[in-house]
Amino acid sequence: MFRKLLIANRGEIAVRIVRACAEMDIRSVAVYTEPDRFSLHVKRADEAHFIGEDPLAGYLDARRLVDLARETGCDAIHPGYGFLSENAEFAAICEAAGIAFVGPASSVIARMGDKTQARDAMKAAGVPVTPGSAGNLADVEEALSVAEQVGYPVMLKATSGGGGRGIRRCDDAHQLEQAWGRVISEATKAFGSADVFLERCVVDPLHIEVQILADNHDNVIHLFERDCSIQRRNQKLIEIAPSPQLTPEQRSYVGEMAVRAARAVGYRNAGTVEFLVKGNEIYFMEMNTRVQVEHTISEAITGVDIVREQIRIAWGHKLAFRQEDIRHHGYAIQFRINAEDPKNDFLPSFGRITRYYAPGGPGVRTDTAIYTGYTIPPYFDSMCLKLIVWGLTWEEVINRGSRALNDMRLQGVKTTAPYYQEILKHPDFRNAHFDTGFVAAHPELTQYSVKRLPEQTALAIAAAIAAHAGL
Amino acid sequence: MFRKLLIANRGEIAVRIVRACAEMDIRSVAVYTEPDRFSLHVKRADEAHFIGEDPLAGYLDARRLVDLARETGCDAIHPGYGFLSENAEFAAICEAAGIAFVGPASSVIARMGDKTQARDAMKAAGVPVTPGSAGNLADVEEALSVAEQVGYPVMLKATSGGGGRGIRRCDDAHQLEQAWGRVISEATKAFGSADVFLERCVVDPLHIEVQILADNHDNVIHLFERDCSIQRRNQKLIEIAPSPQLTPEQRSYVGEMAVRAARAVGYRNAGTVEFLVKGNEIYFMEMNTRVQVEHTISEAITGVDIVREQIRIAWGHKLAFRQEDIRHHGYAIQFRINAEDPKNDFLPSFGRITRYYAPGGPGVRTDTAIYTGYTIPPYFDSMCLKLIVWGLTWEEVINRGSRALNDMRLQGVKTTAPYYQEILKHPDFRNAHFDTGFVAAHPELTQYSVKRLPEQTALAIAAAIAAHAGL
Repeated sequence: MFRKLLIANRGEIAVRIVRACAEMDIRSVAVYTEPDRFSLHVKRADEAHFIGEDPLAGYLDARRLVDLARETGCDAIHPGYGFLSENAEFAAICEAAGIAFVGPASSVIARMGDKTQARDAMKAAGVPVTPGSAGNLADVEEALSVAEQVGYPVMLKATSGGGGRGIRRCDDAHQLEQAWGRVISEATKAFGSADVFLERCVVDPLHIEVQILADNHDNVIHLFERDCSIQRRNQKLIEIAPSPQLTPEQRSYVGEMAVRAARAVGYRNAGTVEFLVKGNEIYFMEMNTRVQVEHTISEAITGVDIVREQIRIAWGHKLAFRQEDIRHHGYAIQFRINAEDPKNDFLPSFGRITRYYAPGGPGVRTDTAIYTGYTIPPYFDSMCLKLIVWGLTWEEVINRGSRALNDMRLQGVKTTAPYYQEILKHPDFRNAHFDTGFVAAHPELTQYSVKRLPEQTALAIAAAIAAHAGL
Repeated sequence: MFRKLLIANRGEIAVRIVRACAEMDIRSVAVYTEPDRFSLHVKRADEAHFIGEDPLAGYLDARRLVDLARETGCDAIHPGYGFLSENAEFAAICEAAGIAFVGPASSVIARMGDKTQARDAMKAAGVPVTPGSAGNLADVEEALSVAEQVGYPVMLKATSGGGGRGIRRCDDAHQLEQAWGRVISEATKAFGSADVFLERCVVDPLHIEVQILADNHDNVIHLFERDCSIQRRNQKLIEIAPSPQLTPEQRSYVGEMAVRAARAVGYRNAGTVEFLVKGNEIYFMEMNTRVQVEHTISEAITGVDIVREQIRIAWGHKLAFRQEDIRHHGYAIQFRINAEDPKNDFLPSFGRITRYYAPGGPGVRTDTAIYTGYTIPPYFDSMCLKLIVWGLTWEEVINRGSRALNDMRLQGVKTTAPYYQEILKHPDFRNAHFDTGFVAAHPELTQYSVKRLPEQTALAIAAAIAAHAGL
């Protein structure tokens, strides 16, 4: 097995990988830029190396990270999610340097990162894709003609896009004409490519994604699906496994299609195949060639340690499971606790955590890099904690989620936790009836009243007395 | 369902019950004596009532607790473990007051609390008991004669004993003569009864216990067994589910015997049937008529929320499961993190927790009432945290346990955590080859060297500088 692994990431996913390494007796090497000097991943790794004053540059410097891996005697690099995780060049540099990249081959990353290539590969393999353009669009006239064929609304998308950027919905020809220039310019700036394509817009579908694992020995399995329909502006907030909204037939179908998709492109390591589901329509959306933020809930329902499997696969081991070994048990929900103020249009709320107390008890897991006294830096994404709950039934997991959110103490910044309590109370959510339009359709859920905890009240009173006394 | 439930307990089990209530939409009422004023169960319950200056008296005052339940509008009382949980009179007072006691009928508690009655009931039901006296012993002559029949060593036991007290091992007739008076006097003092009986002493057996659930509708199921062989002076330290040491045949056998035992006495609610196992010998030891400290690991391998089931059963619901619905998946280990110094003969180490950071990530659960700044009072038992880990295989759960113990920060008091790390490294433990003699046989495992964490070193340096500067 690998002796030493460099983690080209930060925050909670870096801590997650440190933990996997510790359990596999692999030494872990963390990297950090200046704002992350006191980050938990730095404290918990076996070694930590400083990679620059700039908050972000070091995490994005592929060559330097690979050099550092070599210098520190690492034989593997785990990219986590975000940053360089879906950067084909980074994977290629690792390959060239003889350092195992914990992910698929660089060629596969490149292919799946190009959305029209991915669509073409899926079509060829018999995986259904949303009706739309064959390959990239030549000009706005072609766009208008394809849109006419598939019917409005359509989505105009950057071929190299991702993370919800470089995408625009167009409800008619006029909007499409207007969007054309903008999406191309956004795409060029953000992804360095002017290629765009077009698909029919499936309005308010379910966002269903299937976790897959593939080894170097031609074994591909899936770990069932996740329902990530609770999103705000294409950002996932709450994820659920398995989806309480799929029929058993739909569940087998998406699992089968995901395995077919992975096989079609010679996929290796952990990956996610995303689908849009609306009624009887199920379409391939894209493939994420990395571990996902929400891998945790698939772990909770199957018992498979996905990060461990990623590392084993990268080493060349066969999968430890056959498809028939994988069962799903109960339901899991992940809450992305973001340092944002839902009452104030989800404005980021960075700053010092004055108190953090992890929730505990049955069926509760936390993945985080925060601690009491930690200051959330403003340079990175606002997710500061993942709260994962498991329950035997849909009702149990909802009640457990509510209890665990209430159990947790996270003070000093505003978070999305109280907003999630409102979602958990909503009858449509409780009845497992929600789609990607849920959040936008229920702005009233951000209008909760803030309940002060007794200890906060005591502090406020003490502060008032101190102020009055001129202390 | 119940509207409001009084928790006649404190600390982590009280927090556990608060959480179950929260998930079931039942209001929880905590009680506390003076040293528990700042305890987490007081903070987390919906209501909390002061029950006196004396640290213990309030928790043991059956009548007052029942009165308080009535005054606060509670329709149920959960006794937790310890304190009044196996006190038949307490259950009887609840029954008389029309308040549901979350546990078996008072008559069953009384019967199982009397060890000779329990033995007799088991014998009658065809559950094997350790060879020994039929009923209580009349005098030392009878004891000597029974001992001669069953063979030395023997255990002389208080009939009403429990928790490892009122028990003495005798290797020959001389020791038995000497022990006779002492055990009787101990038993009289501790349990208010001079009754004693005698059994053959099975030297260094496995301690195997089966979790059972029984409702009021004649349904009895088991949730498989726990291996509690890692004990020090009859106090459990590490518990494992399922036992990595039983054959599948032994597993089915103890499960079947436990259900038979529960049926034989008309048992209701959650309970534990304890067995001694040595080679092919399997004997009923005793039945614990309450939730156990280590119920958590049975929850981890089956997904059943035992405290929730306890409350549902007390309400009169049928069990939510049939035996065939219950599967065990993977392995779980519970570490009882005690505030004790293993290097100093496990001397209690009470005091202020200067820092507590819960371990997280996959397969990790904590149940505790401590927090940073909490002072562990010296009046209660020294267990301050339960760390539960789950893994798909025996190897994975051991590695996860080690990682999670390392991940946790608990400073200000000495704990048994570093000692458990040594146990996890021991080849006999790793090879699943250990019995109740393991701890005594390996005193060298307490001789670990204490590794200071970087932050502790920094604090020590700062303190030294401050002292030097005369600050």
